[in-house]
Amino acid sequence: MNFRIICIGKLKEQYLRDAEGEYFKRLSRFGVIYVTELKDSPVPAVASRAEEDAAKRTEGAAILKVLGSMNRNKHYVIALDRGGKDLSSEELAGKLSSLAAGGKSTVVFIIGGSLGMSDEVRSAADYTLSFGSKTYPHRLMRVILAEQIYRACKISVGETYHK
Amino acid sequence: MNFRIICIGKLKEQYLRDAEGEYFKRLSRFGVIYVTELKDSPVPAVASRAEEDAAKRTEGAAILKVLGSMNRNKHYVIALDRGGKDLSSEELAGKLSSLAAGGKSTVVFIIGGSLGMSDEVRSAADYTLSFGSKTYPHRLMRVILAEQIYRACKISVGETYHK
Repeated sequence: MNFRIICIGKLKEQYLRDAEGEYFKRLSRFGVIYVTELKDSPVPAVASRAEEDAAKRTEGAAILKVLGSMNRNKHYVIALDRGGKDLSSEELAGKLSSLAAGGKSTVVFIIGGSLGMSDEVRSAADYTLSFGSKTYPHRLMRVILAEQIYRACKISVGETYHK
Repeated sequence: MNFRIICIGKLKEQYLRDAEGEYFKRLSRFGVIYVTELKDSPVPAVASRAEEDAAKRTEGAAILKVLGSMNRNKHYVIALDRGGKDLSSEELAGKLSSLAAGGKSTVVFIIGGSLGMSDEVRSAADYTLSFGSKTYPHRLMRVILAEQIYRACKISVGETYHK
């Protein structure tokens, strides 16, 4: 199983790059993982709701363009969203395993930008996955997601993985 | 409001130390935050359930000892546990604000070790807070918690804080 993370903007902080890199390194024995970083749409420091929505839609359009280029028979798209299903790590592992068994070669995860995710992106995904009720910075979310993918792979092959 | 995090073991990874340090630095304008790192109880690589439970109880006893030394009228103890209440970031901010208004000077957060948290510790806490259904490494949890405390403080003073 391969994994692709689509997100907005670069990881500026070295410690986040190092953390994500560490999980990617560990993940490499389970499959290929790659990241598509799309350009963020800057908004003024004090932005109106309309300006924020416009920026979110621009970012969303860029994500939809990437999704449009994929063979959706082979790709399964999971949007990260607080309103989605808050699977446990074991349930996520089970889901990824059954996707692989069902012929999907790549699971695509989408992390929205600092303004969140547009409804269009949410609708275009096959599934929305929640990481609980809290809001996290989208860049830290990349690290949290990488760890959970790694954890899911470990669970799927029956290896122990501590809290 | 001051914050104290009680946890098991040290942060070995430099990127986690840097990430936690960054949030602590930002938090410093809201209050003092300090960490009490207790010794972990090593278990064999292949440990029996009984060995794991014994180690968890030993770690729990050390946590209880620290709690016992506190003036519980001034301290409010929140144990992090998947089975707890999965407050949103806004709800957590509201809770911390009302604790401060109610005369608590310090909120104490407890993160269990790699084997989890003993029932005794869970019972000794004033509240159990969940970060959703997923299991995270206890060291990464320190970073996730530090960010949420910082986010809660920002929300409480009415500052914007992006996703």
